[in-house]
Amino acid sequence: MSVPTAEERVLELGLEIPDYATPPYGGRYGRMKAFHRVGDFVELSGITPETRSGERLHPGTVGVDITTEQGYEAARMTAINTLGIIRYALGSLDNVAALSRALCFVVCPPGFEDLHLVSNGANDVFLDVFGTEIGSAGRASIGSTALSRGNCFELWLSLESVSGRAV
Amino acid sequence: MSVPTAEERVLELGLEIPDYATPPYGGRYGRMKAFHRVGDFVELSGITPETRSGERLHPGTVGVDITTEQGYEAARMTAINTLGIIRYALGSLDNVAALSRALCFVVCPPGFEDLHLVSNGANDVFLDVFGTEIGSAGRASIGSTALSRGNCFELWLSLESVSGRAV
Amino acid sequence: MSVPTAEERVLELGLEIPDYATPPYGGRYGRMKAFHRVGDFVELSGITPETRSGERLHPGTVGVDITTEQGYEAARMTAINTLGIIRYALGSLDNVAALSRALCFVVCPPGFEDLHLVSNGANDVFLDVFGTEIGSAGRASIGSTALSRGNCFELWLSLESVSGRAV
Repeated sequence: MSVPTAEERVLELGLEIPDYATPPYGGRYGRMKAFHRVGDFVELSGITPETRSGERLHPGTVGVDITTEQGYEAARMTAINTLGIIRYALGSLDNVAALSRALCFVVCPPGFEDLHLVSNGANDVFLDVFGTEIGSAGRASIGSTALSRGNCFELWLSLESVSGRAV
Repeated sequence: MSVPTAEERVLELGLEIPDYATPPYGGRYGRMKAFHRVGDFVELSGITPETRSGERLHPGTVGVDITTEQGYEAARMTAINTLGIIRYALGSLDNVAALSRALCFVVCPPGFEDLHLVSNGANDVFLDVFGTEIGSAGRASIGSTALSRGNCFELWLSLESVSGRAV
Repeated sequence: MSVPTAEERVLELGLEIPDYATPPYGGRYGRMKAFHRVGDFVELSGITPETRSGERLHPGTVGVDITTEQGYEAARMTAINTLGIIRYALGSLDNVAALSRALCFVVCPPGFEDLHLVSNGANDVFLDVFGTEIGSAGRASIGSTALSRGNCFELWLSLESVSGRAV
């Protein structure tokens, strides 16, 4: 019994990963690109809990308008979107050598202490799909006053690609 | 008719780009350097809408003390400063292979949704100067309570240099 | 009289640097790793002013619950923790070729202007230990509403390792 690859795990978990090739990423904004790669080091653009057509999951402020659990769900959706960006960048999730680190922005008020419980929604997806060796990442969770379009969460991720395997 | 280079575009657009070599960058603070390069990957220090002598453009909070349009102007000035830092790091804007990504910090209150309209002030400069292929970048816009010295905007940029061409 | 190395400076300064190998980093959270390295480029996880057993130095909001001087002390402790993470990542502080840049998150209210005076607490340690050439870094200081577990400061650092010398 062999260990499943990340793409096999996505099938097992039944995750529905959006396609960032169609329509082209950045089409709505024009000014942005999805990722940049220098050697095997890959930096992704900021990713939010929005569908490709712009519907937001749980906009607002965690601890005020929405609960920590709803923040967790938004972070989880953001991670699933991230899998789509990674496919778009590397052709397949199986071309990820390792995640590097994840800067997690959480819209929350002063005094809110459970930012990490929100961010876990993203990390739990990465660990489920990639396993601990590839899917664990450095992390910080940062309380923000606001994010574009009222989103409650945004992810800023870097990773390492398998050498020479990319689009 | 050939496509103009980034340095040629700066002349066409009449941009006045500050010189970060004189006086030396970090002189006022001592603790900071302007950039670091590992291979072709370059990380820039945080850049604000200040002149070399420390005069700030539109300090305050976007949506409270200053308008979104003033925030856009501050982001635009920040991008022009960034061109100066890039010249200082790489010798010439023509040594940029591609921008990687731009983390844009916007001082704004809870409920403010137009952070991306502020950040566009920076990206519009980069697209005007470098064109879409080199000048588009990954991006996130993050609402902050405050920035050093009351600035309303700060840019945290990474980029790729043309191989082997640098100071 | 030769220039002392970073490890020799730590002895001279009498710094007590925590050990991130024992107990293993991320044990409390499981989802996080301490660092990732691609070639000579190293990204560290977010680092806070907490002991290995989770005791926080000066939790709260700078300018409200705690003073700028207490924020400086928290940033200083964070930098000393960072030295422990660097040892864990590279085996020795003497394997640092140069710091790249430091994104400093400071919990503070709107209108607070002295974020850089807080962040200096981290940079002063790095300059004391590594000297100017290796220890100066790019920097930005970002006002945040909150950080995980009520911490007042968090550091997001990247650096360059001496080639080929690492664990």
